[in-house]
Amino acid sequence: MPLSFQLTATDGHARAGLLTTPHGVVETPCYMPVGTQATVKAVSSEDVRACGGRMILANTYHLMLRPGADLIEKAGGLHRFMHWDGPILTDSGGFQVFSLAGLRDLSEEGVAFKSHLDGSPWKLTPEIAVQIQHKLGVDVLMVLDECIPYPSEEDYVRNSVDRTTRWAERCLAEHRKAGREGTQALFGIVQGGRFAELRERSARQLLTLDFPGYAIGGVSVGEPKPEIYRVVEITTPFLPVEKPRYLMGVGTPEDLWDCVERGIDLFDCVLPTRVARNGTALTSGGKVNLKNSKCQEDFSPLDPRCSCECCRNYTKSYLRHLVLSEELLVLRLLSLHNLRFMSDTAAKIRQSVLEGRFGEAKRAFFRDYFPDKPPAP
Amino acid sequence: MPLSFQLTATDGHARAGLLTTPHGVVETPCYMPVGTQATVKAVSSEDVRACGGRMILANTYHLMLRPGADLIEKAGGLHRFMHWDGPILTDSGGFQVFSLAGLRDLSEEGVAFKSHLDGSPWKLTPEIAVQIQHKLGVDVLMVLDECIPYPSEEDYVRNSVDRTTRWAERCLAEHRKAGREGTQALFGIVQGGRFAELRERSARQLLTLDFPGYAIGGVSVGEPKPEIYRVVEITTPFLPVEKPRYLMGVGTPEDLWDCVERGIDLFDCVLPTRVARNGTALTSGGKVNLKNSKCQEDFSPLDPRCSCECCRNYTKSYLRHLVLSEELLVLRLLSLHNLRFMSDTAAKIRQSVLEGRFGEAKRAFFRDYFPDKPPAP
Repeated sequence: MPLSFQLTATDGHARAGLLTTPHGVVETPCYMPVGTQATVKAVSSEDVRACGGRMILANTYHLMLRPGADLIEKAGGLHRFMHWDGPILTDSGGFQVFSLAGLRDLSEEGVAFKSHLDGSPWKLTPEIAVQIQHKLGVDVLMVLDECIPYPSEEDYVRNSVDRTTRWAERCLAEHRKAGREGTQALFGIVQGGRFAELRERSARQLLTLDFPGYAIGGVSVGEPKPEIYRVVEITTPFLPVEKPRYLMGVGTPEDLWDCVERGIDLFDCVLPTRVARNGTALTSGGKVNLKNSKCQEDFSPLDPRCSCECCRNYTKSYLRHLVLSEELLVLRLLSLHNLRFMSDTAAKIRQSVLEGRFGEAKRAFFRDYFPDKPPAP
Repeated sequence: MPLSFQLTATDGHARAGLLTTPHGVVETPCYMPVGTQATVKAVSSEDVRACGGRMILANTYHLMLRPGADLIEKAGGLHRFMHWDGPILTDSGGFQVFSLAGLRDLSEEGVAFKSHLDGSPWKLTPEIAVQIQHKLGVDVLMVLDECIPYPSEEDYVRNSVDRTTRWAERCLAEHRKAGREGTQALFGIVQGGRFAELRERSARQLLTLDFPGYAIGGVSVGEPKPEIYRVVEITTPFLPVEKPRYLMGVGTPEDLWDCVERGIDLFDCVLPTRVARNGTALTSGGKVNLKNSKCQEDFSPLDPRCSCECCRNYTKSYLRHLVLSEELLVLRLLSLHNLRFMSDTAAKIRQSVLEGRFGEAKRAFFRDYFPDKPPAP
């Protein structure tokens, strides 16, 4: 099998594990930096590694449109193309088709859509989604799923869940037919919207297909945060203990604590790199907005507890100058820092699980991270 | 003295030397990367160092407006502010006032202008220009000079030359008064437009002030390239052999060869980093425009002879994908490469002077760098 998961320790529902992939072992919980277009925005693959990134996410939808799966296959696969030697997981493209592409035509066969780049017509079926991810050569591929709007009505969601299961079956059949079961791992995606009964229905259906890992999808689509946590709580009881659990599109620092607490192992989120490009740093003392005039004569690093290149070398005063001057350098420096902060946070959570003091560690983190507004206990 | 220059070897007019500054020794000829706003665009100070950069240029005009000289002084000077431990030279601001600022009011006293950022009123006199550069704490500061348009009439240029000399005297007086002669070096700037007689007049006047180094100013202002080379030829004979010569604002790879050949030691130019941000790489085989479809399936590095981070890790195909996808990473990677190419070129020129084979080395470089259109011999 290309992928195995070993559960090392638990503390309540919180888990610490080891995910073994063809491109190395990943300690979980793990935050995966997002490399949508085969690059984590503003940083190099070497930078991601230096910031503690161990496994990254890329997007089937974006890469099929540009530069195209065939080109990446010719380059020797996505790892060689982007010079990243760690594990890569690709989203199947379903989420992006439903959020970015225009003029969708959804049927049992799959989804036809127009590219957000040039309006050209494309098709994504379960088979095509899997074929593309085979060409990319990623470690973990995701089944094609239907991503429904939030909120959606129960009948609509039930039909969508059943279709997503039929698509998952077709993905698995295509994966087996291509003989890739020994080299790449295909994960299932639990859907079901906000309905406990439908989340259970989706999970039970997918479990019969025995995927090596399961994702929770259809979250982080505009719903309030407690709703995400509730969906995690109603879904994880139906997921097998011995397999990795991936919460798609979720991953602020506080989300990591809140969702590991509810049994999640893997995260991805654009927020840490996106807010960096907007001049905001995530630090052990909370968020720092460099546009704040408090930073003007602050000659200390962003985060005295951080060992990243930005914190080792530059002051808040200088970073603020770069933000105000719209200098490119600051986009990279803040991205480096936020990536480091995310991997440090994941490592801190893992350590607390291993030592059986998750609750205490979480309280300490929240106290420091929300100095002005402690969250409800 | 804060600065000394040792001429190590010559080959014709071409020179190889060692420039000793408070922040280390620089081998000449030297290309100085341009850090206009206290950052070389798209790269960090660590990156500049890794690409062979040894001495950088920053701009008094930009830094006085933002973040302000007082703030940089509070930060411990420009070196600490931007975390660059090598030598820094600052332009006095004259050129930028005449090229960027609005509504100038020029008098014997100095120049009043409106900021290009917010229209606020500012004044730059010889004394203020020197005071600001003292606060920045740079290794080499430049006198305030009047930068005249190209072409200008002879009478106008003659008056301007004489005023530039009077301003140079005031800069030197301010520099001495502040007791900075022992810690920072002030360079004179030879003006005189396209007139041999006036270039000689300017040089002879400035030589009586005995500056530790001389720049040639008023070039690279829109004139054709042979005109730049002619101005260098008519000026260098009047510059002292034992002092460094800096050609302001000039420095493509071919300029380095052509102007070292005419006796120049120091260069600065935004072109290598500017074209990088436009998707163009300078390589030993000539310029490479990554938008060119030839790069699409080219899985080789930009320049097989280059050891920079970009060439070690990434292919032309990937870089082209990043350019077409407008991904930030490529701005840094191409800047890294072009900076490396500039420092490699300067090192190659130096080596050829040391070995007495400048002419041969120049011909070999041009043959490779202009593969389609060899320049006239």
